[in-house]
Amino acid sequence: MKKVNIFVTLRESILDPQGSAVKGALHSHGFPEVQDVRIGKYLELMIDDSVEDIDAAVNEMCQKLLTNTVIENYRFEIEEVAAI
Amino acid sequence: MKKVNIFVTLRESILDPQGSAVKGALHSHGFPEVQDVRIGKYLELMIDDSVEDIDAAVNEMCQKLLTNTVIENYRFEIEEVAAI
Repeated sequence: MKKVNIFVTLRESILDPQGSAVKGALHSHGFPEVQDVRIGKYLELMIDDSVEDIDAAVNEMCQKLLTNTVIENYRFEIEEVAAI
Repeated sequence: MKKVNIFVTLRESILDPQGSAVKGALHSHGFPEVQDVRIGKYLELMIDDSVEDIDAAVNEMCQKLLTNTVIENYRFEIEEVAAI
């Protein structure tokens, strides 16, 4: 069994209003040291070992369904784990 | 300047309907090998070097504002980066 951790973030050129709002809230809660906040998605997928090329499969899942590649970037890590 | 990557996930005991929905969509898009999907938040914070104890500061930000510790877990990584 593989555990795949996927990190989806907005492209640098895309404005992140949610991130700006959280930055403002952190400042008003007494954390002025925070210079920038970017918010994205974090997905954990458990994938069984029936897949031959897991890199290709995860890339296809990300491009087809899990991200909007026009405005988002993604990267992932693959870990070997015991079956659930 | 420090770059802090924060990973927020639902506690294991908490049902993840969004994750179940994505799992169903992946199956119907031809990815039956996916056994489980958990969806969380990924935050990237840029924090200047005025902070003495950055671990304590980030823990406090997470517990006070960035996560709901009743239903969520969080972990974070700290990287040294050039100032923006």
